Amino acid sequence: MSNVRASVITIGDELLIGQTIDTNSAWIAQHLNAIGIDVVRRVAVGDDAGAITNALDEELGKAEIVLVTGGLGPTADDITKPLLAKYFGSKLVLNETVLAHVKELFVKRNRPFLERNVKQAEIPDNCTVLHNKIGTAPGMWFEKDNKVIIAMPGVPFEMAGIMEDEVLPRLQRRFVSDAIVHVSIITSGEGESFIADKIQDLEEALPKHIKLAYLPGLGAVKLRLTGKGKDKEALTKELTLRRDEMAARLADFVVGLEDVPMEHILGRALAEKKLTLGLAESCTGGYIAHLITQVPGASQYFKGDIVCYLPEIKERILGVEHSTIEKYGVVSEETAIEMAKNTLKVLNCDYSLSVTGVLGPAGDDDEAPVGTVWMAVANKEQVRTKKFRFHYDRTRNKEMAVQMGMLMIWKFLNHKP
Amino acid sequence: MSNVRASVITIGDELLIGQTIDTNSAWIAQHLNAIGIDVVRRVAVGDDAGAITNALDEELGKAEIVLVTGGLGPTADDITKPLLAKYFGSKLVLNETVLAHVKELFVKRNRPFLERNVKQAEIPDNCTVLHNKIGTAPGMWFEKDNKVIIAMPGVPFEMAGIMEDEVLPRLQRRFVSDAIVHVSIITSGEGESFIADKIQDLEEALPKHIKLAYLPGLGAVKLRLTGKGKDKEALTKELTLRRDEMAARLADFVVGLEDVPMEHILGRALAEKKLTLGLAESCTGGYIAHLITQVPGASQYFKGDIVCYLPEIKERILGVEHSTIEKYGVVSEETAIEMAKNTLKVLNCDYSLSVTGVLGPAGDDDEAPVGTVWMAVANKEQVRTKKFRFHYDRTRNKEMAVQMGMLMIWKFLNHKP
Repeated sequence: MSNVRASVITIGDELLIGQTIDTNSAWIAQHLNAIGIDVVRRVAVGDDAGAITNALDEELGKAEIVLVTGGLGPTADDITKPLLAKYFGSKLVLNETVLAHVKELFVKRNRPFLERNVKQAEIPDNCTVLHNKIGTAPGMWFEKDNKVIIAMPGVPFEMAGIMEDEVLPRLQRRFVSDAIVHVSIITSGEGESFIADKIQDLEEALPKHIKLAYLPGLGAVKLRLTGKGKDKEALTKELTLRRDEMAARLADFVVGLEDVPMEHILGRALAEKKLTLGLAESCTGGYIAHLITQVPGASQYFKGDIVCYLPEIKERILGVEHSTIEKYGVVSEETAIEMAKNTLKVLNCDYSLSVTGVLGPAGDDDEAPVGTVWMAVANKEQVRTKKFRFHYDRTRNKEMAVQMGMLMIWKFLNHKP
Repeated sequence: MSNVRASVITIGDELLIGQTIDTNSAWIAQHLNAIGIDVVRRVAVGDDAGAITNALDEELGKAEIVLVTGGLGPTADDITKPLLAKYFGSKLVLNETVLAHVKELFVKRNRPFLERNVKQAEIPDNCTVLHNKIGTAPGMWFEKDNKVIIAMPGVPFEMAGIMEDEVLPRLQRRFVSDAIVHVSIITSGEGESFIADKIQDLEEALPKHIKLAYLPGLGAVKLRLTGKGKDKEALTKELTLRRDEMAARLADFVVGLEDVPMEHILGRALAEKKLTLGLAESCTGGYIAHLITQVPGASQYFKGDIVCYLPEIKERILGVEHSTIEKYGVVSEETAIEMAKNTLKVLNCDYSLSVTGVLGPAGDDDEAPVGTVWMAVANKEQVRTKKFRFHYDRTRNKEMAVQMGMLMIWKFLNHKP
């Protein structure tokens, strides 16, 4: 454990009443990790001076670097800046560079510059200003007893900008650390316990500086090996060897060796094979298309999606026979097959996936029991169908269906059962 | 501050290296808040005995209730349960009821029951077992020095199930608390500072037991008034009065008075007016349809979406003229108008929205500068268009576009400029 330790404090009542989900902490952790800094704790406190001061005291006792996000906005509920000035025994002074930048942003956005915005340019006189290119509240870098405290606004993309432009390069220069390397295996089709049993001997044989974690996800279990060491190259080699050994043992269930979402794995497979994909989504309502188009360059292989939420649209655009829906129901293998086959023609694509189901809550639709979803994947030669039954709520059923759908295309493409 | 205080500890290395975004804490906070329990801190620590013990010590010093999530799975990286047993001076004993339940789940899921799964039924002998209907790891309720410590698995829907079935009713019975009431105003079109200036006098006149927070979001600023008091009914009345006063002042920018996402606000408006909606999404790739179909009952008003990611599909299915795309470009007002107008016919709907743009990164498309998005909303009588220019990365540009698109439909529906 020779790595430099960091702790992240996020400030804001909205975090404590659950109105905001904290995505900043994960972002910060990922990026610190990449330069060999361990995040050892994350703490969230409200907009309360006592709680913030107490958190600073405690976290400074546990880490060399403390990152604080939130509480730097222009409105009255933001109390962090004056508090930090007091904590570090400094006073707030107007910073002309920051003021010019704030004014420029207001002109650019065509917004009136108000008296209260001047306050955003008042900075404690003993910190280093960290430039916030895209926002009005700058970051601040304090030092105390050889420790570093960094305060940033809570708006995610502003925080990320300051981290990338200012914080990460400075931290890297200042703290020399052990390298941390992660490698992953993405598996699908079996549970955590089953996987663990299959590789128990390999897990037990891991040296002390390599840790294995199981991360169960939606229809997938991710295995992550994390190693620490002085020599990054040697460590990477060692981890890759261990990973490959485990992956070979788990071969039938391995979807990929990179820690990327399914839409990236699928996108890469389509791009490599120079194949195009089209979708016909009913109950998943465009979610699969949304994920597939999150990947830059998706236009290479993704043609489009007919979100046919009503049966009327399945007939009108996809040309599903009215008699098929009458006879078998909207949620049926037969309807899924017609949807998938016709999508190949309608969207002029090499492969297609169709999804039709009932996600809940009960009563929304009486076609089939809640949680029933039929999917079909097709190319010109073949169709493959599968029936799913999900047992969660609407949102989770949708997420499961979406992951299973992408996996189904991937397996079909790769001739896996 | 007479409310009962709770602290949430989440355990897992995956949280500290940023592989997992912590949604549990927000869920827990919301639900505790609703029964009048204040979450005063949230702490995340790794799978490390020292760090967990230290967090338990510290948080028990700051709160009457400590909720712990994570670290209860069947694999070797989960160390929480033996640690809790030790911390509370108990030993792990096999619980037959839990064992029967675990076995039943394995049978149901058609998975082999393994030796290591027996361990999931070993429970500290001085805790109350909290039944986990949908998972194998039960929750545990400990008491120490008149404080309550609750441990639950980290899988979000298992945690939520245990909270709803077991934890919330028990906490409510045990702790009598002040009521907490939140009311919200959702605004759109102006920044945080502008809004704050407009209602400065109303904010300053707020009594001590009512707090105002500004929560800037995607193209919207949410105002939240939070009040605490003995008499929930009187408090609700008082907050509603204050909120209405502020909303009246901000009338031009108010989108809604309920803290729900835009897709709910839009869905309600469509349902009330008995109107149907169809979409034609290009660069947003089905994301708007995905959000709209997150709302139960969306089939009342949502017909479908033509995700026409390639120009070819815009022509083929939406009947956009090849000459329009040739002459004006795919990302143009003219193309957006044809897409929206034709969607009315193709999807047989009362209102339509079309979106065509370039979200980035650069080079993905050369049609227009990265971040340019044209949208059109149409009904049989009118079309309204708008050009946007987003300055963030692909993901954020997409999120912004999606919010702006829904807002554009809502404004068109409500005859707002």
